[in-house]
Amino acid sequence: FRSWQNPRAKEYRRIYDIPDAIGTAVNVQAMVFGNTGDRSGTGVGFTRNPATGANEFYGEFLINAQGEDVVAGIRTPQPIGELEQVMPRAYAELRAITKRLEQHYRDVQDFEFTIEDEKLYMLQTRNGKRTGHAAVVIATDLVEEGVIEPEDAVRMVDPDALTQLLAPVFDPDAWAALPAVTRGLPASPGAACGEVVFNADEAVRWAGQGRDVLLVRKETVPDDIHGMHVAQGVLTATGGMTSHAAVVGRQMGKPSVVGAGELHVSESERVVTVNGQRFEQGDYVSFDGLSGEVKIGRVATRPSEILQVLAGQLSQRRSDIYGRFSRLLKWADKVRRLGIRANADQPDQAATAYAFGARGIGLCRTEHMFFGEDRIPIVQRMILAETEAERRAALDELLPLQREDFYGVFKAMRGQPVTIRLIDPPLHEFLPKREELMVEIARAEAQGRTDGLEQKRALLRRVEQLHEFNPMMGHRGVRLAISYPEIAEMQARAILEAACRLAREGSKVVPEIMIPLVGHVGEFRDQKAVIDRVAAETLSTAGLKVKYLVGTMIEIPRSVLVADAIAADADFFSFGTNDLTQMAFGFSRDDIGKFLKDYQDRGILTRDPFESIDTDGVGALVRIGAEKGRDARPKLKLGVCGEHGGDPASIDFFEDVGLDYVSASPFRVPTARLAAAQAALARR
Amino acid sequence: FRSWQNPRAKEYRRIYDIPDAIGTAVNVQAMVFGNTGDRSGTGVGFTRNPATGANEFYGEFLINAQGEDVVAGIRTPQPIGELEQVMPRAYAELRAITKRLEQHYRDVQDFEFTIEDEKLYMLQTRNGKRTGHAAVVIATDLVEEGVIEPEDAVRMVDPDALTQLLAPVFDPDAWAALPAVTRGLPASPGAACGEVVFNADEAVRWAGQGRDVLLVRKETVPDDIHGMHVAQGVLTATGGMTSHAAVVGRQMGKPSVVGAGELHVSESERVVTVNGQRFEQGDYVSFDGLSGEVKIGRVATRPSEILQVLAGQLSQRRSDIYGRFSRLLKWADKVRRLGIRANADQPDQAATAYAFGARGIGLCRTEHMFFGEDRIPIVQRMILAETEAERRAALDELLPLQREDFYGVFKAMRGQPVTIRLIDPPLHEFLPKREELMVEIARAEAQGRTDGLEQKRALLRRVEQLHEFNPMMGHRGVRLAISYPEIAEMQARAILEAACRLAREGSKVVPEIMIPLVGHVGEFRDQKAVIDRVAAETLSTAGLKVKYLVGTMIEIPRSVLVADAIAADADFFSFGTNDLTQMAFGFSRDDIGKFLKDYQDRGILTRDPFESIDTDGVGALVRIGAEKGRDARPKLKLGVCGEHGGDPASIDFFEDVGLDYVSASPFRVPTARLAAAQAALARR
Repeated sequence: FRSWQNPRAKEYRRIYDIPDAIGTAVNVQAMVFGNTGDRSGTGVGFTRNPATGANEFYGEFLINAQGEDVVAGIRTPQPIGELEQVMPRAYAELRAITKRLEQHYRDVQDFEFTIEDEKLYMLQTRNGKRTGHAAVVIATDLVEEGVIEPEDAVRMVDPDALTQLLAPVFDPDAWAALPAVTRGLPASPGAACGEVVFNADEAVRWAGQGRDVLLVRKETVPDDIHGMHVAQGVLTATGGMTSHAAVVGRQMGKPSVVGAGELHVSESERVVTVNGQRFEQGDYVSFDGLSGEVKIGRVATRPSEILQVLAGQLSQRRSDIYGRFSRLLKWADKVRRLGIRANADQPDQAATAYAFGARGIGLCRTEHMFFGEDRIPIVQRMILAETEAERRAALDELLPLQREDFYGVFKAMRGQPVTIRLIDPPLHEFLPKREELMVEIARAEAQGRTDGLEQKRALLRRVEQLHEFNPMMGHRGVRLAISYPEIAEMQARAILEAACRLAREGSKVVPEIMIPLVGHVGEFRDQKAVIDRVAAETLSTAGLKVKYLVGTMIEIPRSVLVADAIAADADFFSFGTNDLTQMAFGFSRDDIGKFLKDYQDRGILTRDPFESIDTDGVGALVRIGAEKGRDARPKLKLGVCGEHGGDPASIDFFEDVGLDYVSASPFRVPTARLAAAQAALARR
Repeated sequence: FRSWQNPRAKEYRRIYDIPDAIGTAVNVQAMVFGNTGDRSGTGVGFTRNPATGANEFYGEFLINAQGEDVVAGIRTPQPIGELEQVMPRAYAELRAITKRLEQHYRDVQDFEFTIEDEKLYMLQTRNGKRTGHAAVVIATDLVEEGVIEPEDAVRMVDPDALTQLLAPVFDPDAWAALPAVTRGLPASPGAACGEVVFNADEAVRWAGQGRDVLLVRKETVPDDIHGMHVAQGVLTATGGMTSHAAVVGRQMGKPSVVGAGELHVSESERVVTVNGQRFEQGDYVSFDGLSGEVKIGRVATRPSEILQVLAGQLSQRRSDIYGRFSRLLKWADKVRRLGIRANADQPDQAATAYAFGARGIGLCRTEHMFFGEDRIPIVQRMILAETEAERRAALDELLPLQREDFYGVFKAMRGQPVTIRLIDPPLHEFLPKREELMVEIARAEAQGRTDGLEQKRALLRRVEQLHEFNPMMGHRGVRLAISYPEIAEMQARAILEAACRLAREGSKVVPEIMIPLVGHVGEFRDQKAVIDRVAAETLSTAGLKVKYLVGTMIEIPRSVLVADAIAADADFFSFGTNDLTQMAFGFSRDDIGKFLKDYQDRGILTRDPFESIDTDGVGALVRIGAEKGRDARPKLKLGVCGEHGGDPASIDFFEDVGLDYVSASPFRVPTARLAAAQAALARR
């Protein structure tokens, strides 16, 4: 049982969210031997290709060997097809048994066998791990073959794995232009490009600095898991398709090429020689996990096949995988109850989200529109204004820009609901950093330079005024709009004017205006009054009737406790589970990294609560808020935005609470569609 | 009705927590005239002295005048005693009526009257506002006179007003050494000393910079209220004992001298001439609100009479006010249900708290012990340690110092319970400030200085590692102890060893060890295991049995939601309502000043939620936590620490929730005793 407690087992459990407490079991059985001579052997295999999903018998074996020899990657095994020549009877029996196993379990089988003196023994079978690509291919094939129903296919595919199908691929021309330096086994598909590192700790360190790294090893061992986790890809010199690097790479959806035997890896000198060339730590290397080709240098990547189809760069008919992907998600849409929206701030993001199947925007962050190069000077002028009149003058310049943004987003969503959140971050985020200004001024003073010094000092004074000790709990969200109602006025006007323009063009649009960070019903009422007044003015000027909703984020614990009072006036709630997690735990999202690992090591938390919702705490708040809100207003529209909207475990919880929709980042929309379907099926 | 909406009425309501929504009423009645000639007049008065509480007829009148003339302070009125000579019949009738009014209302009356052609008309009577000193004197006198019962006395005194009796007084020798430059009317007692300012806005600005200011005015007007609120005292050249400055000064418990007619105040030139001397804005002036004496210069203050008695510097018998204060609080103790503890970190604070009547410590913040000059270098060494061994070496040095602290606090509390909170703040609080280091290094680099530069850079690197974006939600409290269990071990050992020493000396002590910032039951269990292990080792080494409790702060919203799970293992809960308010509202205590006034102006919040508990939100969390906790463990001890423990309105709420005790800062303990009694009486 000791293997349950070793560090690599713990790391594995951490990555895959397996609780430490469940324990492990041990079976005791008679031993068979594959190493009694040339009439014996051992092997492993899959009933279908776990990398591509192709319906082909797949695996490896070694004559006169035990199982450990295959997996360890020390001897290079033979492809399983060659077993037919060597031991035809055993091979035929193996094929018959594994086919029956697949039919029985209605899924791809990952099996191990040993042949002792030509007698076949099955050691193990289980549902095979597979890449995201393979998962979609296998599920759609099994439906076609009549083995399973479409709903089984929906149940079978891990929603998280769909993101692998959206990962970038190499630009074919750039890729073709570079000669391959060697070729290994294509263990896990995908385009990988990064700076070479030779051990897992280095990989973690470099990745932490925001660098793309490739982990290059003679062979990987379970201790490398944390390095593989952060790497763009894994490249090894030894090992087969079922070696550690290959198995783990596929599971993680991490591009991997293994057994590239021409690589001479000197991990101590941090250099690789290969066919007369060499590369060192820090050099760029690229490889293709589907072909196994390895190239020295950096190759531009391009969107995955699915994205190319969505962008109209590739026809649907020419992409097999797009057809399967699309079919699977249509099956999912038939069974799910939850609506799926996207978090998108710009028209192009909205268009992508729509193409991925989002039917509505759950969160359009207006302040992201402020960060454009042409806009930030206006925003800064607004912040530095000494009077309301100056501030209004700057806001007047922002108005047409925001109106254009909203028009574009509405249009991209083709009449689906769009929730626009009014300004959220504290104003100092739009100004230079306080400590950088302090350092600049100190340096200029020390050097006796006076050019621009007074302006910098004046800027610093304003930055100091705006400085906050805990900006996450500072002057932001609705608090800003209460101090400066003219900001909310401008935004409400821009939204309504954009809606009027669309109405005039004959398009349908119902803007949902969302007030962020409400904790007190008085805040909501105050701002709703501002919005309603501006809307009445705008619509009367335009001579139009446009329906709009006013609602709020529920992201402050206090708002949950008074949700009934807020719901009396609000048309909708959107649970902002990022902030709600911050406030409920008292964990700053930006600082949790300082202790999260200690919490996981000591078994206090299994998953990062910002990745997957903490059902006992934050989830309890969502449930209370939803119940109180619906008690006060039975038709209250309830959704969730924030990262949890794209996390399958969280989506399952939101299904349980009975929310109307989840909103995820565009690339997580397919995952959310599938996860919502699984959540609905689980409750049938 | 318009007067209800004018800015000064709004400001008044804000200061006294009167909701804007309640509105005002208007009576219509026949007019009488005090300005028909010398047989007419008008006046105001109190049945007892509202400044000192002395049982004497007190007031002023003006012949041939209307009420407004007395209050406005333009004509200087005559003392009410002189009315006896001018209009003996009306005076006798007035005395008889006001005595009856006091008997009827069983409280001091503040009345207004007009005499029209020698006929007395009573215009108004109401319970009189009074200073804290007067409130205690009047209440105890009324009991002695048999007018009211002790419980009525307890009901009658505003608990907040007791703090006035604890305010410092001048050092008599220093005061005597300085000549008085003039003398005014002693409108509100207390020693005031500060830098002179001439208008309310200036007062607010200077006070905001942490300066002590005296507001000096020809006369005050209601627009000055915000300046009076922040000033150490108010000094005016005109006006009587019932002028605006006098009335408001007494209500606020703010030392005030009014009608100091020798002052020639030039508010535009910001200078005062008085008897050939002068002082300007920014000069120090001192005055005594009980004698009316004004002096130019700064006079050292000393503890109030009550503090002098408690410190043994003055005998109980020689202090009338101490006797009354003490009697009133004993009556309060008889009726209250809530226990009263204090927040005290050092033995001397604990002794003061005990003297004020605290019976236990609800919060002993151990990290305050780390900030001592002899300790901070050791603490820094602990933080900068690169290995656990180095860290343990520094902790070993801290152990005897902490043990000594705890021993002193236990001893000062004479066997009453002492709750010790383990380390709470993030470690960077013990290191130099990041931006200051950055500026120092930039300056040294720009000037080409290299001395000590490398050390500073190394220090900055560590400070950068510890830097947090939102330290209030960062690596602090139990999170620190989970990363560095050796800190909690040292603290637990110091607590238990101190307790053992007392046990050996024959003293009783039951330490209550409190784990801060728990949000997850796993955190509590992890640390309780550490404490129990250390306790077992320490007690076995000592060969003693000492009882101790392990409990937690409930200050993180999530902990409320899982309070039942935590209570299964915890001996007590202490609601940390400061942090709970921060997290429930998402308001940083350090940053709320940026928008609180806007919230009050717009009627969203009436009181600062850090001063008085927000019953709908934070209070709801306290109630849920208490209920869940007691469901799981009926005998769970429940208390509250944090500022709300000394706020009367909050104490009333905690009585309602049924907590066992409140813990207040030592100087708020008398207020808490009285408020707890009133809360109990209100529920009879």
